[in-house]
Amino acid sequence: MSDPSVGLALDAVRLEKLHRMFAAQPFMGLLGVVLVRADHGHCIMELPYRPDLSQQNGFFHGGVIGTLADNAGGFAGASVMPLDSGVLTVEYKLNIFAPADGDTLIAKGHVLKHGKTLVITRVDLFTRRDGHDKPVATALQTLMVMQPRPALAAS
Amino acid sequence: MSDPSVGLALDAVRLEKLHRMFAAQPFMGLLGVVLVRADHGHCIMELPYRPDLSQQNGFFHGGVIGTLADNAGGFAGASVMPLDSGVLTVEYKLNIFAPADGDTLIAKGHVLKHGKTLVITRVDLFTRRDGHDKPVATALQTLMVMQPRPALAAS
Amino acid sequence: MSDPSVGLALDAVRLEKLHRMFAAQPFMGLLGVVLVRADHGHCIMELPYRPDLSQQNGFFHGGVIGTLADNAGGFAGASVMPLDSGVLTVEYKLNIFAPADGDTLIAKGHVLKHGKTLVITRVDLFTRRDGHDKPVATALQTLMVMQPRPALAAS
Amino acid sequence: MSDPSVGLALDAVRLEKLHRMFAAQPFMGLLGVVLVRADHGHCIMELPYRPDLSQQNGFFHGGVIGTLADNAGGFAGASVMPLDSGVLTVEYKLNIFAPADGDTLIAKGHVLKHGKTLVITRVDLFTRRDGHDKPVATALQTLMVMQPRPALAAS
Repeated sequence: MSDPSVGLALDAVRLEKLHRMFAAQPFMGLLGVVLVRADHGHCIMELPYRPDLSQQNGFFHGGVIGTLADNAGGFAGASVMPLDSGVLTVEYKLNIFAPADGDTLIAKGHVLKHGKTLVITRVDLFTRRDGHDKPVATALQTLMVMQPRPALAAS
Repeated sequence: MSDPSVGLALDAVRLEKLHRMFAAQPFMGLLGVVLVRADHGHCIMELPYRPDLSQQNGFFHGGVIGTLADNAGGFAGASVMPLDSGVLTVEYKLNIFAPADGDTLIAKGHVLKHGKTLVITRVDLFTRRDGHDKPVATALQTLMVMQPRPALAAS
Repeated sequence: MSDPSVGLALDAVRLEKLHRMFAAQPFMGLLGVVLVRADHGHCIMELPYRPDLSQQNGFFHGGVIGTLADNAGGFAGASVMPLDSGVLTVEYKLNIFAPADGDTLIAKGHVLKHGKTLVITRVDLFTRRDGHDKPVATALQTLMVMQPRPALAAS
Repeated sequence: MSDPSVGLALDAVRLEKLHRMFAAQPFMGLLGVVLVRADHGHCIMELPYRPDLSQQNGFFHGGVIGTLADNAGGFAGASVMPLDSGVLTVEYKLNIFAPADGDTLIAKGHVLKHGKTLVITRVDLFTRRDGHDKPVATALQTLMVMQPRPALAAS
């Protein structure tokens, strides 16, 4: 809770929007991802280890790491976008530099640049074992702000 | 079966190694990914749609797309590596350029460059609906050849 | 001239716009880059070798390779954008997989996806020696269409 | 000089190797890049503005930004590699998120992960005007340690 990297608190309306958006992603439920916290421009997600999330060596699968990176970045970005907009992943690049073995996979996303159309985020990923966090991967991501369409907004 | 992009057939030993490696990844089973075919330097994986693989709009989740890209590239790379080596994803970059809506998600990976230590792959992703394949994403990936350790090889 | 990868010819107005845009980049002149051809969604640029474009081994410097990749992709993208728009590089990723030794460095960019706001391109890079082209690098790039501002358009 | 992000000082032999490597890159001379400082796992390079380094709007060209990113990352990586090894750029990804206008372009590279074969770096880029540094881009890079070949080492 004392992580110095987190930003300013979100107001209740915005926080509720993010939690609703998260709950609306069935794939998060399949994996068991937890939206731990969201602040202005920051987001932390965690995923407890399960054997069916692993690759051939029993570590978190690379696809699981990519999923958590993409989503933690996406929600960090969504936290700074207009309330009535949606968020779209344009692209991301992920470097995995250590085996993702641990009890929990953690992704900390934060916004590097907030433009009107695009938002750039960085995500740092860790595995936790016995309370110790080990860096395992990092990602750089481009998001697009999806403006509500006038026709839809009017309905 | 008449896809002109696939390479030369793999011998039985190598093909069996790839299928064994695939079967040893529990996360593939959780998602329902199918290793459709593997040739020298090429690999095709498919994933039938299920609601629990989706994001908030009902499309394949970006993390699912990244997973299939990473794995189709990884197996394309593994197909050209020494039989006794393992494969490790160093990094990948994924561009998603269309909504991934469809009955099936398809990833076609192929090797761009095969070095002694590193293998570079490209993966093209499509969604299929009513027999029509729509391009939805593309990835560029760097893999590392994991040499067997002499001590382990000797044991 | 018989390269099958090039697209449909551009009309004279659009072709002239691209050549004007190219001539307006002083950095291209410093390096000696040549805009060899531009078609709808495709662009080829070449750069004759000079010792002052090299790194410590006498090969084309990685920054030179990145420059040619960025620009060939950018002009391929600009060729499909509205005539009154500008082009901006959002990001690119470059894999260098062979030493860039040769008499000429060649970049062939082409558009993968043309959206209203974003254009995605791929660029393949080669070095030529004695008429033989060797693949040395590949890039994946995201461009943004810069709409003319109403105030400026009205003036 | 009081930048808290820089690492431990390098010994004289290693520092001299980096400066020799930098001086051996003719392309750095063509652009006018200055190797401002190198510490263990960190490197800062600067490039004073010149009109012939610009694109059509008079800002630093994207290729110049990529060049400085690639080289500042490469030298940060080289600073932690064995003295008798060389360094090779495997790949990098660059996000440009603001116009690079200013009197000086600055790249600060630092090592994220130092492996035996691969080194991962992050590079942050700024433009300086009137003493104020504005963030303009960021990069994520994979380097390879080039071991001296036994045959060459023996000669």
